[in-house]
Amino acid sequence: MLVLRKPYLLYLGDVLTKADAKTAFGLRDWCRADVLAEWSLPACPVTLDLPRLAPAAAAEAGAGSIVVGVAVTGGRLPAHWQDDLEAALLAGLDVVSGMHTRLTAFPRLVAAAATSGARLVDVRHIGGDYPCASGRKRSGLRVLTVGTDCALGKKYTALALTKELKARGVAATFRATGQTGIMIAGSGVPMDRTISDFIAGAAEVLSPDAAADHWDVIEGQGSLYHPAYAAVTLGLLHGSQPDAIVLCHDPMRTTIDEFPDFPIPSLHDAIDYYVLAGRLTNRAIRCVGISINSSALSDAQWDAYRQRVSAQLGLPVCDPLRGGVGLLADRLLAS
Amino acid sequence: MLVLRKPYLLYLGDVLTKADAKTAFGLRDWCRADVLAEWSLPACPVTLDLPRLAPAAAAEAGAGSIVVGVAVTGGRLPAHWQDDLEAALLAGLDVVSGMHTRLTAFPRLVAAAATSGARLVDVRHIGGDYPCASGRKRSGLRVLTVGTDCALGKKYTALALTKELKARGVAATFRATGQTGIMIAGSGVPMDRTISDFIAGAAEVLSPDAAADHWDVIEGQGSLYHPAYAAVTLGLLHGSQPDAIVLCHDPMRTTIDEFPDFPIPSLHDAIDYYVLAGRLTNRAIRCVGISINSSALSDAQWDAYRQRVSAQLGLPVCDPLRGGVGLLADRLLAS
Repeated sequence: MLVLRKPYLLYLGDVLTKADAKTAFGLRDWCRADVLAEWSLPACPVTLDLPRLAPAAAAEAGAGSIVVGVAVTGGRLPAHWQDDLEAALLAGLDVVSGMHTRLTAFPRLVAAAATSGARLVDVRHIGGDYPCASGRKRSGLRVLTVGTDCALGKKYTALALTKELKARGVAATFRATGQTGIMIAGSGVPMDRTISDFIAGAAEVLSPDAAADHWDVIEGQGSLYHPAYAAVTLGLLHGSQPDAIVLCHDPMRTTIDEFPDFPIPSLHDAIDYYVLAGRLTNRAIRCVGISINSSALSDAQWDAYRQRVSAQLGLPVCDPLRGGVGLLADRLLAS
Repeated sequence: MLVLRKPYLLYLGDVLTKADAKTAFGLRDWCRADVLAEWSLPACPVTLDLPRLAPAAAAEAGAGSIVVGVAVTGGRLPAHWQDDLEAALLAGLDVVSGMHTRLTAFPRLVAAAATSGARLVDVRHIGGDYPCASGRKRSGLRVLTVGTDCALGKKYTALALTKELKARGVAATFRATGQTGIMIAGSGVPMDRTISDFIAGAAEVLSPDAAADHWDVIEGQGSLYHPAYAAVTLGLLHGSQPDAIVLCHDPMRTTIDEFPDFPIPSLHDAIDYYVLAGRLTNRAIRCVGISINSSALSDAQWDAYRQRVSAQLGLPVCDPLRGGVGLLADRLLAS
């Protein structure tokens, strides 16, 4: 399992828009207690409204890592950000990046890391060594977010559900499977980078034995309906052995994102398929509700949609950003 | 895609039994035309009944690779085989191994390869770079062998079906996905070593566009019912886009091999599940028959079993080692 050193100094370079700094805003919002400060180049117009600390000062204040909290088009790390990152490394901070460009592609950064002993952590590129899955049933309870497609709220739903459970005094842990989730949690398994023989085994490692009433809330990946990524989804489902799933869906999508020949399934079919596939490692698996990205719907449309789908499926229907996930938590804890 | 240099010199080291030389016997039987000779240490009692050639002589006779054709317990390459392998490398032969021990763990072999420019090919450890799957429908026809479990005849069935189709004058290519299959075919994709995001993409690369009446016969991997390897199975199924599947089964098994808590499914359920999953990338997928490992059944038992199952499912039931796969080819070509 990949483990990051917190707390973080969030780095924005000189990005021009909040959208490009999406990762940093996500970290600020979801793990505020683990974020010490922000830093950026003088020309950067974006701010997280956090204290500003230069890398050396952040290190003195106890920071563990500087996190490149940006998601720019193409995923290339601009070369002129190296001064700040080098300074961070020499001050003893790990550099954590989710960019396509590897940190190890910059000789100056490699040299600085070697000098101080700090790490270059390319979250997008770390595979890790995992065992084959054993299939052994583990103690504790697990819920996995799944989807009719990629990129429609599986991470957000898992984070919101973890927060809701904790607010009710339920022992719960968010388990991260993608790069942003891993930065938020401070640890996790980058599922899409594992060797294919060990996908389910990696998911077993991610969510170990726990107390009988403890919930692991596991961030889902991909979709069983995705022609490229369904294998990752299935391995994560099998290794997670979830007692419960939450199905995430965007009602405006008619086809899989970037795959116009692949239709989005009905919610009913999708629940059946996930339950059929998940039964292999947990006979008791059940769907406890639907999480919707309703941003394109008016209030009246959302009310009508929610009531209709809830009645059709006999399940709670939530939007984490519009009313929260209380109904999902109710159903999860009811049985 | 991994491509090996044929023809082969098959190397037996000093294994003591035919069972330990299973890989070499498989290569002799399935790609005899690509096997030039055998070689072994003086103490080796096993022979393939092929001409004996020392590595240097084999290289002079045109060999491309020396293949370590053994599968010993633990998968460790004995250190005292190094003399022969070093001689082979210095004579210009690639060394191809499917052992757990990496050839690159032996400095003498690394040095010899560097000297001559020959390759050390660890078939078990090569991942390769593959693209994400596109889901685009490719031209040509495809049949994939699938299974109720691992290790029950998916490779053998695919090889036998390829041979049967060719004997009938049908254009057909065996597509290898595991290490022994890749040695036999001389190329292929080691599916279990791919990065999980690219499993389906690797399967697309394995089986490219082809003539409209050409059959790719694709070696299956794992099982959708296997708690550790189902993800590999699903990615291969999606990327293969098979028009047809053959379900492989061992009637004596009641649980998944080495996973006693996981029952073998009924053939009927397994066909339904594979067809459901495979429909994502090929709506016309159909099961064309069952391939059985019947070695534990008497002739009378096999006749009764075959007729009963065939009547129940309305599908041909074959054992490649007991009557061949003619009925599978009939059904495959009938529609």
